[in-house]
Amino acid sequence: MTSARPRVVIVGAGFGGLHAARHLRRAPVDVTVIDRTNHHVFQPLLYQAAMATLAPSEIAAPIRYVLRRQQNTTVLLGDVRAIDVDARVVHCRGDWSVPYDYLILGAGTRHSYFGHPEWEALAPGLKSIEDAIEIRRRFLLAFERAELAEALDERSAHLTFVIVGGGPTGCELAGVMQEIAGRAMRSDFRRIDTGQTRVLLIEAGPRVLPSFPAALAERAAAELRELGVEVRTGIPVTRIEADAVYMGDTRIPTHNVFWAAGNTASPLARSLGVPLTRSGLVIVERDLSIPGHPEVFVVGDLAFTTKEDGRPNPGVAQVALQAGRAAAENVKRILRHQATRPFHYFDKGDLATIGRDKAIANLFGGRMQVSGRPAWWLWLFIHIMYLVGFRNRISVLIQWAYAYFTYQRGVRLITGRERYGGEVTYEPVPYAENAPLSGELH
Amino acid sequence: MTSARPRVVIVGAGFGGLHAARHLRRAPVDVTVIDRTNHHVFQPLLYQAAMATLAPSEIAAPIRYVLRRQQNTTVLLGDVRAIDVDARVVHCRGDWSVPYDYLILGAGTRHSYFGHPEWEALAPGLKSIEDAIEIRRRFLLAFERAELAEALDERSAHLTFVIVGGGPTGCELAGVMQEIAGRAMRSDFRRIDTGQTRVLLIEAGPRVLPSFPAALAERAAAELRELGVEVRTGIPVTRIEADAVYMGDTRIPTHNVFWAAGNTASPLARSLGVPLTRSGLVIVERDLSIPGHPEVFVVGDLAFTTKEDGRPNPGVAQVALQAGRAAAENVKRILRHQATRPFHYFDKGDLATIGRDKAIANLFGGRMQVSGRPAWWLWLFIHIMYLVGFRNRISVLIQWAYAYFTYQRGVRLITGRERYGGEVTYEPVPYAENAPLSGELH
Repeated sequence: MTSARPRVVIVGAGFGGLHAARHLRRAPVDVTVIDRTNHHVFQPLLYQAAMATLAPSEIAAPIRYVLRRQQNTTVLLGDVRAIDVDARVVHCRGDWSVPYDYLILGAGTRHSYFGHPEWEALAPGLKSIEDAIEIRRRFLLAFERAELAEALDERSAHLTFVIVGGGPTGCELAGVMQEIAGRAMRSDFRRIDTGQTRVLLIEAGPRVLPSFPAALAERAAAELRELGVEVRTGIPVTRIEADAVYMGDTRIPTHNVFWAAGNTASPLARSLGVPLTRSGLVIVERDLSIPGHPEVFVVGDLAFTTKEDGRPNPGVAQVALQAGRAAAENVKRILRHQATRPFHYFDKGDLATIGRDKAIANLFGGRMQVSGRPAWWLWLFIHIMYLVGFRNRISVLIQWAYAYFTYQRGVRLITGRERYGGEVTYEPVPYAENAPLSGELH
Repeated sequence: MTSARPRVVIVGAGFGGLHAARHLRRAPVDVTVIDRTNHHVFQPLLYQAAMATLAPSEIAAPIRYVLRRQQNTTVLLGDVRAIDVDARVVHCRGDWSVPYDYLILGAGTRHSYFGHPEWEALAPGLKSIEDAIEIRRRFLLAFERAELAEALDERSAHLTFVIVGGGPTGCELAGVMQEIAGRAMRSDFRRIDTGQTRVLLIEAGPRVLPSFPAALAERAAAELRELGVEVRTGIPVTRIEADAVYMGDTRIPTHNVFWAAGNTASPLARSLGVPLTRSGLVIVERDLSIPGHPEVFVVGDLAFTTKEDGRPNPGVAQVALQAGRAAAENVKRILRHQATRPFHYFDKGDLATIGRDKAIANLFGGRMQVSGRPAWWLWLFIHIMYLVGFRNRISVLIQWAYAYFTYQRGVRLITGRERYGGEVTYEPVPYAENAPLSGELH
């Protein structure tokens, strides 16, 4: 791992890390990209994998495949456990480490359960492909369990879906869930009517989609309600149990809670030894480096960056992508003995989709607002454009067209094991593990 | 679950069970299909999912979706634990049961490790979507670990793949593995040359593909060798360890062993209380019913059936599919007070593929033998034809065309957890579970 050329280590191959790596493809450096998974995920479409519209492989690509032509770059599968900024070494699980001359850290965030870590097992969030497969598994199993349930209240608890958090992910999940239950699934079951499915979207703040202008967000909420989603704002979730969620004192019986509320930073941020925000984000310098270490840059939603007016930039793909490029550019500038440049986020606009034909778009800093079908087609067009580079775009188009015209979902596989232990009734078990045939019967 | 109409319960929605259900779609009966998973798997292409060519969802379809238009049929997700043929009840895990008037049992087989159940964790087999994802995970991880390995012998142990069993699945896996390693992966790694990958195919019997005529099987073996696969016949595997496999006294260092050898019946066969073969298959009557219980039929590879000349029918999709239909037809005949009919397998031919442009076909009972590229195109055509009914055929075609022309594989995702415990170094861990940042570092 020694080299005459400066060593740039990039931790995390999300939008920030991956675009930093690509920006360095012709630079006179040796790049090492370390990620805990072997794939880059196209995060804005993760909810489509969770909702069985797209296959996981359609929104993810092997990192080393994306970077295969980049001869100055090595990709390593590794779980970075700490960064020693003084020794300039990245430490990985399994007792190996990688030294660096420049570090670009894009380790991202996880869900924050606001001091209730025990909620994680009950209300999974959506950050990774694994998360998407877990949510897909729970979502599809809910209908299977409802079909098997004898008692009416048990059945309706299986058919109640609660989404905590009214940001873009929460709204997208809620809209698609209601659509799938009300449309795609109806002809498949004999004992239940999936049209009876309740989807609740709970937002503690005063309105959904707080990052959008109020009028646009209100239109999105109206469209969600039109679909049948029960939108509840201004009410915090106070308690989550295996079979219920509480909003204040109101108990809602449900086995299906999904988390789309706050974020908390990767614990790697702490090992940098610099000031963090309350949720653990790294307060970077204007050029994305950290105080006292001009050779360490933080990108993506792990970095706390602000607009000109001091408002924080959102934790979205566009910010991460632009920051990744900016950090890589600053590494190149340092190598050329030039001053680094401050990071400016160029805001092309925000989009959120709610379901078939329904979306909102806030473009050019609010100068253009679109909703309904035009916004949905815009959303579709933009996401297909961005999927270029991902080789799966044709099959993604086919899957979408199929889902659009037939209202069906193509990827309704229940796979994987119960992640947090607990009930395992429906898990496939190798025969060897089966209990003896006697006993257990009634 | 009570009904005036005769109740037909079908256990297992493989080729046998699913086609039995479809054959009963207009019959005056209430059909209940019970399966441990929510999906029917197109088994002949399972190895393509294991080798990252196709996405799991492209070779599987939700059972209830396939049967959604069939109003007399209910699909239940359940793990059948025993059958009480006297009480005519099927018992499921989770303490529920389903009574029947007629039973069609297609519960299938699992791998047999010939008295070495401890080998299962070390050498996974390929029967289910879960199996395919596990093999894909191990296959892709092997290259990641080789890239990280410092010691040469460690690296080559990661790059050695051993497949036990020279039947169609073993040959297909071996051929594709060698192709992917030698072609698709080469530009992705910096420290290893995946062209150095060794693939060994070990068959205890005198030759590979024993179900094919000797000349055709010999041609397949020659094509495998041409690809670079080391084909070893007449040598049993005597021992499997975490880091080696033994053929007689020869120790082959490897971390990657895959099992494509014998089968053993579902333990449900035992609960029928009728004579079984040595490997646990149910010795059925000519009409596929079991001795003493004309209302119970066994189909698929769980049933031991023979040709006119007494030779056993192979455990392939075609036999299962035809037996499923025959059993369903016999149920209908009983209801019409007609005598049941014996099952005759109409053998359309056998196909095995070895890699790009390479396959063998034994058609019309051996009267036509094809190998090489024509056989491969025949194989492709037949499998695409059979995928009709599966809605994914277009995207499967695209994936294949992509893999064919670019030599690349599109679905190279490492997902899921270590199934059998053991090392978990590369498993994604929620931050909350992470160890404190101090300690553990060197």
